[in-house]
Amino acid sequence: MSNGEFDVIQRYFTASKRPRRKDVIVSIGDDCAITEHSRNQRIAITTDTMVENTHFLPTIRPADLAYKAAATNLSDLAAMGAEPAWFSLALTLPKIDSLWLDEFSQSFFEVLNHYNVDLIGGDTTKGALHVITITAQGIIPKGKALCRHSAKVGDWIYISGSLGDSAGGLALLLRENGATTKSAVENVSISSLNEYDCRYLIQRHLRPTPRVLLGFELAVSSLANAAIDISDGFLADLTHILERSQCSAVIHLEKLPLSASLIKVFGAQQAERFALTGGEDYELCFTVSEHNRAKLERALMHMGVAYTCVGQIHGFNPHHKKRLRFQRDGQLVELVDTAGFDHFR
Amino acid sequence: MSNGEFDVIQRYFTASKRPRRKDVIVSIGDDCAITEHSRNQRIAITTDTMVENTHFLPTIRPADLAYKAAATNLSDLAAMGAEPAWFSLALTLPKIDSLWLDEFSQSFFEVLNHYNVDLIGGDTTKGALHVITITAQGIIPKGKALCRHSAKVGDWIYISGSLGDSAGGLALLLRENGATTKSAVENVSISSLNEYDCRYLIQRHLRPTPRVLLGFELAVSSLANAAIDISDGFLADLTHILERSQCSAVIHLEKLPLSASLIKVFGAQQAERFALTGGEDYELCFTVSEHNRAKLERALMHMGVAYTCVGQIHGFNPHHKKRLRFQRDGQLVELVDTAGFDHFR
Repeated sequence: MSNGEFDVIQRYFTASKRPRRKDVIVSIGDDCAITEHSRNQRIAITTDTMVENTHFLPTIRPADLAYKAAATNLSDLAAMGAEPAWFSLALTLPKIDSLWLDEFSQSFFEVLNHYNVDLIGGDTTKGALHVITITAQGIIPKGKALCRHSAKVGDWIYISGSLGDSAGGLALLLRENGATTKSAVENVSISSLNEYDCRYLIQRHLRPTPRVLLGFELAVSSLANAAIDISDGFLADLTHILERSQCSAVIHLEKLPLSASLIKVFGAQQAERFALTGGEDYELCFTVSEHNRAKLERALMHMGVAYTCVGQIHGFNPHHKKRLRFQRDGQLVELVDTAGFDHFR
Repeated sequence: MSNGEFDVIQRYFTASKRPRRKDVIVSIGDDCAITEHSRNQRIAITTDTMVENTHFLPTIRPADLAYKAAATNLSDLAAMGAEPAWFSLALTLPKIDSLWLDEFSQSFFEVLNHYNVDLIGGDTTKGALHVITITAQGIIPKGKALCRHSAKVGDWIYISGSLGDSAGGLALLLRENGATTKSAVENVSISSLNEYDCRYLIQRHLRPTPRVLLGFELAVSSLANAAIDISDGFLADLTHILERSQCSAVIHLEKLPLSASLIKVFGAQQAERFALTGGEDYELCFTVSEHNRAKLERALMHMGVAYTCVGQIHGFNPHHKKRLRFQRDGQLVELVDTAGFDHFR
């Protein structure tokens, strides 16, 4: 850890509000943190960056930004089935703004406390844009990690929660902010602007729930074969599973879990488009064998997270080159424009 | 790990040139990496960010930037005595520039190969500035970490290599780039511009050597009580040891290890100033008890790294409030302007 901006770290990020874990031997304030592990634990490690104007609007509240930066990393741990443990935070800021830092750090530690995560280090630097990089680490029992490469032909494809709400919320936020630049949402027509529905969608965009408990349960129970979190869009992320597992999939469009609010505000057609290609839902997509389906129902019964079967894994024929096929009410249909979200496009 | 820019990661950062470690169970390409550890290992974790215009000039060569970003993190591991193992790389770029990425990734993997470090994940994002955040992890035997808080009264203060060269090199680079803005170096007078000396100093700034083997040896031999790497300037970093160890120190100015090149180019007085307050030397500062001094000489004899005793740890009297006292040839002297490097100042 750099010492350059010791006061910022001392003042905002080492306060007593920070959770302390017993497996952290040395924490913030030395050149490195030191952690300990037991023998049958494996460590899951993920890094995610959020950049102003690319991943969030300059108007975002610091509390929402802190929440989302933490949640996206927790979501990656959830997709692996890991129990969150330690975060490192690299924060680039244009200037030291105490109000901003107060709000950011308070919200950040609320999330960390909720998931029993210890902030073990980081770096605070000066730069023209707000950039937040978190490296998150979690603990996972040996041999239990949920990977992308292990989906099997015949597996059923499940989705937690509902899809597309975050993209809907973003479209509403951009509209509020009077976005006039060419963007993916400029052609979106809005059917209704009920306040409750709009707030719900915006909240789903700003405060996505990382499916930490669900991921952990799926991993330790060995009920799922493969999993990924939906950050780039359902089809884009499912394709990662398909490519790594050398499979294809059939998706039943009428089964996509769409929230009532999303359909009300944007109409059924646009809602489906958001569900398939909108990013940042942070729901889990996981595959389960026929054999484990009944057990899954029992295991997740008391978890309070909805889950929906939306399709099935099939074999992959390299000559056909199609990873994804779609059915609507039993009929094969063709879809266009199913690309995910890519910041460099 | 985010999938957004999968092609960049695939193309530049998962090539066969990447070292593979056996303790990496899952590597780049899933939501998280998974690592394994043996029972008596502890993990050292550090995060460092480098931002364009704050930590490096926009004219820096990508190869030098990659080297330095890796080296600063390795230096933090060295200061703890850890053996480097796994890196995560978060890279924010204004655009995808293949020449830039080719050169950056090649140089990056040269360093990683040299230290047997595996790149286990990261994130590539778009932003107006180049920002590089590395989270580095290393392995350290249980109970052997070198901390800042464990210097003891009577310990001798040692420095590896020489001090101030990096600040000298930066002053030369800023001069070459025709810097006209108000900067710390505008009043630096240059005594001589011998090409060899200038190149040496610039090289020390661009390609500092992380003292990985030295740190590891100091830790496993239990010969040093405390250690830190000199990133913010010798006095600023030594003060971290003193504060955390509740000690003070006497520094013998005539013993500061100054390179012949630094003295030749900048004169003895400025060289001393660079040595005391210039940042980014990435040498180690460590403290050793009287009892261990002879053993230290024997242990480091074949290491090929110079080390110099520059002072001694004393008790701290809170009424006097002085952490640092200076002697020159046996006489107490007063110094002014001994502040370290702080990006927000």
